[in-house]
Amino acid sequence: MKLLEDKIKKEGKVLEGGILKVDGFLNHRLDVKLIAELGADIAKEFASAGASLILTVESSGISIAYAAAVKMGLPVLVAKKHKSHNISDGVYTAPVFSFTHKTENTVLVSDEYLSAADRVLIVDDFLASGNAAMGLLSLIEQAGATCVGFVAAIEKEEQGGRALIEGKGVKVYSLARIKEMRAGEIIFK
Amino acid sequence: MKLLEDKIKKEGKVLEGGILKVDGFLNHRLDVKLIAELGADIAKEFASAGASLILTVESSGISIAYAAAVKMGLPVLVAKKHKSHNISDGVYTAPVFSFTHKTENTVLVSDEYLSAADRVLIVDDFLASGNAAMGLLSLIEQAGATCVGFVAAIEKEEQGGRALIEGKGVKVYSLARIKEMRAGEIIFK
Repeated sequence: MKLLEDKIKKEGKVLEGGILKVDGFLNHRLDVKLIAELGADIAKEFASAGASLILTVESSGISIAYAAAVKMGLPVLVAKKHKSHNISDGVYTAPVFSFTHKTENTVLVSDEYLSAADRVLIVDDFLASGNAAMGLLSLIEQAGATCVGFVAAIEKEEQGGRALIEGKGVKVYSLARIKEMRAGEIIFK
Repeated sequence: MKLLEDKIKKEGKVLEGGILKVDGFLNHRLDVKLIAELGADIAKEFASAGASLILTVESSGISIAYAAAVKMGLPVLVAKKHKSHNISDGVYTAPVFSFTHKTENTVLVSDEYLSAADRVLIVDDFLASGNAAMGLLSLIEQAGATCVGFVAAIEKEEQGGRALIEGKGVKVYSLARIKEMRAGEIIFK
């Protein structure tokens, strides 16, 4: 999606360790007009997927998931991140290792809001190593629901997450697909 | 706002310790149509406030802030929550005690995205004791910016947060104002 790629080229910052900072429009300060366009693009791509629910994870995925949900007329389920692995009743949980923060978290959703009848579209801000995606896919599997696709606003192709998700038979769609990042330069696929 | 009050009456659950659970439509599962209506109501109320920015805090405030921002044509700044009090360069920070989780966090925004010229509307999901609000107000004060109002989707009046914010000369607007909660009963003002 040219609009997002242009924005990343103009305002994204490449930090050490392969971290792309998009704080100015996607994560910390939200460019609401841009995010609404991302939502419209996602809705168009998955118009015929028969999704019943959009699943995201707090907190950077929420605005993008919301923007897509508005266009698709769907509810959003926001998986919670916890530091602890305490498992209580009535929830599905999965471990997720954060590439950015080098910590392991647990993602969690209530079983009240995810059922075997659901056709789930996952929407997140980044796809890198695919750890968060695999955690969310695990929640969907535990519920016996179907995943109709995985969307990332930004994919960092070098980190290999796409193959993991596609290996589960799930379609991957990224709005900006970065082939390579070097200091001061971002190369799109 | 009758739409929200009706939803709270129908689906909200009063837990021990004065906690109101609205997981089914506002916090965990997001009722996107309802939240869009909340955003429209906020935009109408503050149409002439001359706001330049909406400030919220991760993660439950994000969707409501986004919905208001779409209607008002404004960017959103999402304050980050941190467990630690490590203060790095280029950020404003303030301590916030969480009533629900009984923990102290730090809220943080980059000074790149909040300046003395900003007229800031704060949007959050809950107003209870006012701790989160005071933390966000402190960030605005540190930047030398102006706060044009504080919005909560749900106000729990008994916990007294309104007086703290109004004491700072800031207008408080809540979309559902709960006077009293008892087991199985929620009384609105």
